[in-house]
Amino acid sequence: MEQRGLTIAVVGATGAVGQQMIATLEKRELPIKNIMFLSSARSAGTKAAFRGKEIVIQEAKPESFEGVDIALFSAGGSVSKELAHEAVKRGAIVVDNTSAFRMDENVPLVVPEVNEEALKAHNGIIANPNCSTIQMVVALEPIRKEFGLKKVIVSTYQAVSGAGAAAISELKDQAKALLNDEEIKPEILPVKGDKKHYQIAFNVIPQIDKFVDNGFTYEEMKMINETKKIMGMQDLNVAATCVRLPVVTGHSESVYFEIEKEGVTASELKELLRNAPGAILEDEPENQIYPMPANAVGKNDVFVGRIRKDLDEDKGFHMWVVSDNLLKGAAWNSVQIAESLLKLGLVTVK
Amino acid sequence: MEQRGLTIAVVGATGAVGQQMIATLEKRELPIKNIMFLSSARSAGTKAAFRGKEIVIQEAKPESFEGVDIALFSAGGSVSKELAHEAVKRGAIVVDNTSAFRMDENVPLVVPEVNEEALKAHNGIIANPNCSTIQMVVALEPIRKEFGLKKVIVSTYQAVSGAGAAAISELKDQAKALLNDEEIKPEILPVKGDKKHYQIAFNVIPQIDKFVDNGFTYEEMKMINETKKIMGMQDLNVAATCVRLPVVTGHSESVYFEIEKEGVTASELKELLRNAPGAILEDEPENQIYPMPANAVGKNDVFVGRIRKDLDEDKGFHMWVVSDNLLKGAAWNSVQIAESLLKLGLVTVK
Repeated sequence: MEQRGLTIAVVGATGAVGQQMIATLEKRELPIKNIMFLSSARSAGTKAAFRGKEIVIQEAKPESFEGVDIALFSAGGSVSKELAHEAVKRGAIVVDNTSAFRMDENVPLVVPEVNEEALKAHNGIIANPNCSTIQMVVALEPIRKEFGLKKVIVSTYQAVSGAGAAAISELKDQAKALLNDEEIKPEILPVKGDKKHYQIAFNVIPQIDKFVDNGFTYEEMKMINETKKIMGMQDLNVAATCVRLPVVTGHSESVYFEIEKEGVTASELKELLRNAPGAILEDEPENQIYPMPANAVGKNDVFVGRIRKDLDEDKGFHMWVVSDNLLKGAAWNSVQIAESLLKLGLVTVK
Repeated sequence: MEQRGLTIAVVGATGAVGQQMIATLEKRELPIKNIMFLSSARSAGTKAAFRGKEIVIQEAKPESFEGVDIALFSAGGSVSKELAHEAVKRGAIVVDNTSAFRMDENVPLVVPEVNEEALKAHNGIIANPNCSTIQMVVALEPIRKEFGLKKVIVSTYQAVSGAGAAAISELKDQAKALLNDEEIKPEILPVKGDKKHYQIAFNVIPQIDKFVDNGFTYEEMKMINETKKIMGMQDLNVAATCVRLPVVTGHSESVYFEIEKEGVTASELKELLRNAPGAILEDEPENQIYPMPANAVGKNDVFVGRIRKDLDEDKGFHMWVVSDNLLKGAAWNSVQIAESLLKLGLVTVK
């Protein structure tokens, strides 16, 4: 720990994303004077390491946030709704990784590569977008800036780790059982607590989160609404189909989009993405180079490839976007927001 | 076997599709007087059963087709190119499941639910479309007939059995190894004989077949060109992104499409598909009912669900289409073509 630095709290320290937040904070250079790991009463009392020091995980309560500069929340929407305002009341800035406040007009929804400036208008709470939204807007933003953007149609290929650690175990246990010709009993996916559960190993489930009345799922509506909010384009046409796959970590997306400008080539888009913040271009079909989740795991970047012009629509293009959903999709984007707060002088090192 | 009936040859009898062809012929009521199983020299001499009778698999040669009424080819494009014309010369009608003749303007490309009448123009060879094309056009055709069709953008979720029996083994072996923390050595997928091979278990590969110069793959171009040919719509806008998943059998497709007519509702489309030939509507989001590959395996139907109207485009809709790629995508469509030939009087029972 440093003499001068921030006091950081990680809420949901024992979860799949919380652990990635801790690992990311360990690696990055945010000055940290003091760190607290908070959790539900159930997990409190266990220990976790931070830069070689053992830290006891404490139960998250309103008083826990006294003296905290930045609180990173990733313990589910209900915990955020209960405690985020308590943390703000005690002087903390909350970076919330749940969907609790994302569409609240007083809460900035931030992907630093896209709308870092929105942080300046925060009222104590900053929302971290949905994993599948983040990686898509990182790839779309440089294109929007240069050529405008009219329409986005995305089909996702999402990993089970987005549904938490129990979903990872479910996939692995099912795969083992099916390979041994044993029976399986799905209990978690597609949505923990929903009425029905389906096989995920060697299968594909076209449902992530519950259904809205319009036939879309909440996950799809998150992608639609969050994309418009982050990019500041309420009139952008966005449609999404979100699909769960038997992959542990790494979301992939097949993205069709239409730009404003005529006559743009795929090479121009590739050149833009080669130099885009947070993105890495992997696009050499002749050498079979394109993004894949197995290669993206453990990396902070958004990988973009298979960029090609539509064969009918001059302003239409297709691309393939992959990222580690636990990192850029969650933990890394949250820590990155904390770094941006410091960079913009919105939090002060004491 | 029946006293009066057809003489059928199955070419590629030992392959993944060939075996499904045999199983399908056993179940259906096509009158069969005599059946021949043909293969490469390597597999010749082995035996296979048909309706309880043991049949020796013979090496496919030009003379094998003497007296054959219908020859179902599924032994790879090179075998079709070598032997299909030889079979036709000897009086057989060839139903070819490879890509060898699909885009030949003298060869009908047929999905019976869509363009059965095209069979009447055959010159001895009839092509069976690509698996991912077939299931999509079965779902699109009733919509086109009623409301017109302007544009299709599809992202596929394709099973490894489309790449043959060796790809199935590769997926299972890799999954076993990775679950035991063992090393893997990919050797087949994405494309047998291509330069690089990638992990498929717990991964996603955005490449099926090799790349064309325009950035699309041959699989994607097959979907684009074959859809136009089968539906008889050269001016239809079609785009495809084809992706391989760790699923053994059953292709899924996320399909966005625009119709000609204004003001159509999702309910109207559901009603159409509820009564469409070859299709089964599975579309009750409130009960978590939608198509999935694990439920489609072993069935001849094309399952359609998640039909919903685009939130921005009045003529735009989304749907999710799943089918067994070895059955409607290959073996069943070929046998169905044989049944149509009989029904239309294009082949005569002797």
